[in-house]
Amino acid sequence: MIPDSVRTLVESGPLAHMTTLNKDGSPQVTVVWIGIENGEFVIAHMHEHQKVRNIRRDGRVALSFLGKGMNPAGLHEYVTVYGKARITEGGAADLLQKLARIYIAPDAVFPPPALREKPGVITRITPERFTGIGPWAAK
Amino acid sequence: MIPDSVRTLVESGPLAHMTTLNKDGSPQVTVVWIGIENGEFVIAHMHEHQKVRNIRRDGRVALSFLGKGMNPAGLHEYVTVYGKARITEGGAADLLQKLARIYIAPDAVFPPPALREKPGVITRITPERFTGIGPWAAK
Repeated sequence: MIPDSVRTLVESGPLAHMTTLNKDGSPQVTVVWIGIENGEFVIAHMHEHQKVRNIRRDGRVALSFLGKGMNPAGLHEYVTVYGKARITEGGAADLLQKLARIYIAPDAVFPPPALREKPGVITRITPERFTGIGPWAAK
Repeated sequence: MIPDSVRTLVESGPLAHMTTLNKDGSPQVTVVWIGIENGEFVIAHMHEHQKVRNIRRDGRVALSFLGKGMNPAGLHEYVTVYGKARITEGGAADLLQKLARIYIAPDAVFPPPALREKPGVITRITPERFTGIGPWAAK
């Protein structure tokens, strides 16, 4: 379901722009670290952020992040993933620590120890459609 | 209205993720080149893309793009701008050519000559709120 080209890109630690929908239907966008587990994109949150509350109400989300190459016209590659998100409880600190090794540095310690005991939440996104510029884009 | 820190960043040619709203309320995201004219963000389109049709129906949009620095916790800076977009007719090729010198190369020729005579359209976004991580983020 997730193309190999996208998996490879995600393993390199691209900062992803996650769009959720506010109660009034307007878009909400934050930049997040992403991983892949069981064919889903996963994002960890130590707090009940607006994006988490948004997903609990409406699971329609988009993730977008830049690729590494260019197309023949000189335009930068990027991935947009549309999917359905859900929230699961717990495990956020462990996932953040795993991703921090990719996104900050191999020896990074994140989140700070004071937050380690909090369960947090994880966003899990089932991908439904890949677009953008690159080999993953549906024709 | 647009903070100087954001203007400086935009002059460096950051690829921006633009979110518009589809008819069914779901988010639509593409990566675009952005400029600033008269206190508004401007994006050029040679064609009547889905994002253009979306904005004609609902002007609520978000732009997000990465900054250059990190915050003290090791998180990458980024800008999210929420605003109201409108579409104006014409001038797209000239704006694309201007932005191509920043986004591709100082001597880039874009769009291709065959498209030069088309009027195209321009998205103009009046910014209403800046968030993200960085000096532009409202506290």
